[in-house]
Amino acid sequence: MINRIWADEASLPANDRGAAYGDGLFETIRMAGRKGVLLSRHIERMVSDAHRLGISVSRHELDAAVAQAIERWSSDAGDQGWVLKLTLTRGAGGRGYRPSAGMAPNLLISSAGLPPEPPAGGVDADFSRVPLTVNPLLSGIKSLNRLEQVMAARELHEPLFELIMSNPEGHLVEGTRTNLLIKSRDGWLTPPVRDLAVAGIMRQWTLERLRELGNVVQERSVEVGDVLSEACEGLFLLNSVLGVVPVCNLAGHDLPVDPGLATICHPLELLE
Amino acid sequence: MINRIWADEASLPANDRGAAYGDGLFETIRMAGRKGVLLSRHIERMVSDAHRLGISVSRHELDAAVAQAIERWSSDAGDQGWVLKLTLTRGAGGRGYRPSAGMAPNLLISSAGLPPEPPAGGVDADFSRVPLTVNPLLSGIKSLNRLEQVMAARELHEPLFELIMSNPEGHLVEGTRTNLLIKSRDGWLTPPVRDLAVAGIMRQWTLERLRELGNVVQERSVEVGDVLSEACEGLFLLNSVLGVVPVCNLAGHDLPVDPGLATICHPLELLE
Repeated sequence: MINRIWADEASLPANDRGAAYGDGLFETIRMAGRKGVLLSRHIERMVSDAHRLGISVSRHELDAAVAQAIERWSSDAGDQGWVLKLTLTRGAGGRGYRPSAGMAPNLLISSAGLPPEPPAGGVDADFSRVPLTVNPLLSGIKSLNRLEQVMAARELHEPLFELIMSNPEGHLVEGTRTNLLIKSRDGWLTPPVRDLAVAGIMRQWTLERLRELGNVVQERSVEVGDVLSEACEGLFLLNSVLGVVPVCNLAGHDLPVDPGLATICHPLELLE
Repeated sequence: MINRIWADEASLPANDRGAAYGDGLFETIRMAGRKGVLLSRHIERMVSDAHRLGISVSRHELDAAVAQAIERWSSDAGDQGWVLKLTLTRGAGGRGYRPSAGMAPNLLISSAGLPPEPPAGGVDADFSRVPLTVNPLLSGIKSLNRLEQVMAARELHEPLFELIMSNPEGHLVEGTRTNLLIKSRDGWLTPPVRDLAVAGIMRQWTLERLRELGNVVQERSVEVGDVLSEACEGLFLLNSVLGVVPVCNLAGHDLPVDPGLATICHPLELLE
């Protein structure tokens, strides 16, 4: 059984493994009233990634916690949207890095306001100087080990909306808080899950939707040339709270902005 | 200014960046009464690594917190040793990964009992199946991003004392909680700092001590052959709480055990 902890009245125990080692996961869900954007996919990802880490949590337990969170916070938000954050840790204690048998996971539940909407005409981005390394055992997992993203995000200054991180091989992998999608003459392109630090919910949904509509989507390593050549017809940043955000300028280079994708993938049409 | 939080009466705030992103550092110091093993080096490492992460803390602030911790806990421990743990986070809040300007770091201070002493005749170790990836920007930093070590330590079962992790290039890098030192026919050998997830205090002290005594110590990548060939005269695990621990069996292969190193590097001779 998991312990529910409401962030507006308590916090994780002092010996929780979340703060000690980043031993856990989180989900950030865009809410509108009592509904959430791709809510069931967020819950499913947390259950599935918890399983990869050996943290025992059920779909039912998370559903029950989310239902309580909605009771608690949805009416405060009024017509405004809000953000529900779930932080699941392996629990408190253990002997150093080694967890004890049968630990009870802790679920910290919090709410926050929506971030500002990015401008519809596109945002500015640049390349990050912070390399992104991905452990193959942990690829794609939205774990609490996010120091690389923090170090990159420290260099986000106006007017930059995002910084794009590369792996040691020099491939573009993802933004600090977004996945990448490129529209090119030959179809759509995105880095493969095995290279990703975080395999986003919005990324997965968008790839499925594009394919349903008959588009070719390649999942392969992305080079700088893929976004800065004339073959690039658009670069999009995907995030389940912000939706699909076109980039109009990357590292001083103007990019074409095609608003079409935002209309087929708007988060508020994905409420459930 | 840092906020001191005593783990026996409070915990980090719910929105602390330690649990949210592993955005911080820790030190684990072996204490005997009011003295600590290589205490000043631990404090210096935390100040220096905090600086690398852009977390503002001074030597003076940490010294004052440690002095208070000693007042609080040293007499409880009686003649037994104890362990002092300092967890420094960037603070609470910020906008997603991006920290706010001028955040006040939080320092969580806790005490624990000593772990059991490893047997003097050596311990059993094996190779970990969990790869170790090191971001070059964060190499050596004892940050709160330790999920790889947790995943490896989950596979530590009796009679194993340690699992040795390799990087994607196949070089042996470190144990889950120890650095590696090899005695060979040609002198001493240890992986270089740039390859390390954690550059241990005991590792640095031991290398300096060996060199003072006229030994040759090479810092270079370590292959499996370096420890499983006849040239290997001993494999040692270094940890500032446990000291120097010889390995008598690695993955089923008996290794020679030379107790000499433990006598020149015993932690209790390094109290200050």
